[in-house]
Amino acid sequence: MTGATIAMPTDERLSAATPSNRRGEVIRWIAGLHDELTSFFGRLDRGGTFIEDRWERPGGGGGVARVMTDGVTFEKAGINRSAVMGVLPEAAARRLGGRGAMQGTTHFFATGVSLVIHPRSPKVPTVHLNVRYFELTDEHGQLTDCWFGGGTDLTPFYPHVEDAQGFHVALRDMCDRHHTSFYPRFKQWCDEYFVNVHRDNEARGVGGVFFDHLRAHEPSHGLDFEATQAFVTDVARVLRQAYEPIVNRRRHDAFNEAEREFQLVRRGRYVEFNLVHDRGTTFGLQTNARVESVLMSLPPVAMWHYAPRYSPDSFEARLLRMLEPRDWVADVAGA
Amino acid sequence: MTGATIAMPTDERLSAATPSNRRGEVIRWIAGLHDELTSFFGRLDRGGTFIEDRWERPGGGGGVARVMTDGVTFEKAGINRSAVMGVLPEAAARRLGGRGAMQGTTHFFATGVSLVIHPRSPKVPTVHLNVRYFELTDEHGQLTDCWFGGGTDLTPFYPHVEDAQGFHVALRDMCDRHHTSFYPRFKQWCDEYFVNVHRDNEARGVGGVFFDHLRAHEPSHGLDFEATQAFVTDVARVLRQAYEPIVNRRRHDAFNEAEREFQLVRRGRYVEFNLVHDRGTTFGLQTNARVESVLMSLPPVAMWHYAPRYSPDSFEARLLRMLEPRDWVADVAGA
Repeated sequence: MTGATIAMPTDERLSAATPSNRRGEVIRWIAGLHDELTSFFGRLDRGGTFIEDRWERPGGGGGVARVMTDGVTFEKAGINRSAVMGVLPEAAARRLGGRGAMQGTTHFFATGVSLVIHPRSPKVPTVHLNVRYFELTDEHGQLTDCWFGGGTDLTPFYPHVEDAQGFHVALRDMCDRHHTSFYPRFKQWCDEYFVNVHRDNEARGVGGVFFDHLRAHEPSHGLDFEATQAFVTDVARVLRQAYEPIVNRRRHDAFNEAEREFQLVRRGRYVEFNLVHDRGTTFGLQTNARVESVLMSLPPVAMWHYAPRYSPDSFEARLLRMLEPRDWVADVAGA
Repeated sequence: MTGATIAMPTDERLSAATPSNRRGEVIRWIAGLHDELTSFFGRLDRGGTFIEDRWERPGGGGGVARVMTDGVTFEKAGINRSAVMGVLPEAAARRLGGRGAMQGTTHFFATGVSLVIHPRSPKVPTVHLNVRYFELTDEHGQLTDCWFGGGTDLTPFYPHVEDAQGFHVALRDMCDRHHTSFYPRFKQWCDEYFVNVHRDNEARGVGGVFFDHLRAHEPSHGLDFEATQAFVTDVARVLRQAYEPIVNRRRHDAFNEAEREFQLVRRGRYVEFNLVHDRGTTFGLQTNARVESVLMSLPPVAMWHYAPRYSPDSFEARLLRMLEPRDWVADVAGA
């Protein structure tokens, strides 16, 4: 493959500067997933359209942001891809945690696609998905580390137990096709990651899967680069099974003002997680990525109520109890 | 004075544990300012009432949160006081920047009052004010450093130039009664502090004054402890001159939907500043203070628009131009 077929002006430059031959290829892979996901959510919305912005990063690279704000089903849908490279600030290198990231100057290359969908109805959960590929190189341009990361998690606003179960069953089935260790390990990682530590460890949703530093040929799975990448591709495509059925089941459900308000309060917690804890957001803000794309994940509207209290039988209290991590797949088997 | 007149159960315990004799006294001083500010904003609202929550911090100390959510003029008004003590986590000690904060175990004592007022009308600006007192002690209980901090800043949503000017003139007049170096220095500090660095250095509002590590007997001002504290007291009382006239001038102004929406978008930037950059918020989240009190500064509702564009003559564009730091007092003199 050559860089000639790439529409993004920055791609060729990145590809030319590659220390491995993979950069051009993974950039095209991510661009393909970006297109698939945009088509998928365009169809799923049943009426809205994405507008597209292309941006370049001063330090190297750029991205393509696609946002839908006129959706029928989705109040705001943002799907970004980016391919960026440059010198990693020390704080970012420490947080990133790759091998060799601590000695001398670290150069990075990162490409990924990331989406957050905020539905209009509080009966339809918010979903997030991200897949990414990282390379670290030393000052001589030698590759010191490369890995995949990604995940998807569901944030319901109404206590529909079967939605959480269906989401997790779809993830488990997809993961199991690649390696049986993936779902249990990445499900737990997700439960540990999407947590508002400052809110007494409240989860942002009912979890899903999350993984980082997934390298080819690791003893835990033994998959080669292509097989590892194939797993990550399936993560990017899993919402057809994991999320589409939920949207179709809930999109016409009636909702009242209290349910809408609770959705906005929970979205406030989503804002807190993304701005205070999320690695992708922090990495974006530290590495000078385009701020409108980094913060595209924020909801269109959010609320903060002071110290709300909910009676134990209310839908709010039932939703909050659903956020306590559990084995959703075992619950299905046992039901 | 004895601790016997203090209603807060935690005050006496803190007072008894004091390495200096000042702790009980400064706790009462802050409680007095808290009461004054609550009365002031209760009257200014013309109808709303504050509800009060008292909380204790597991590591030592506690606070009193007062929140108004049924206001006539104010959509959400939060006024907190706290007095907390304990061992400082290393990251927090580094950020705090006191003398002797880097060797061995650092114990801290901090008391302060802090408020954020979110008016209903976009024609009335949001205001923030905070005054605080800090002590650091080493592992032997020896006082290694103590200082005052504080400030107030104005966040308008509509481009009323005279509001920003009046706010700054009142601050300048108050500061000048204590030391002529204070206003220019603390005005600049404010311009440098309340900045969304990740938003291409956009200011959160039109500034005001901000200061930290203000110690008695510093060569730059020569004020003793009592005189320094008297200045900080006047900072806490300045909104009578600096903010009340603005509220009274704007409270009955009509506003339309576009103006309300822009207010909510600007409040989104307020959320970003508080969660990503604000030292008080970060300190609170790191030191295990009560989260509902730490995040009481967040607005009741906020919005995020994707990459909004405003025509150069729009009120939005004029407001954004007002955020570029300038000498508001000289503008008045020159007008």
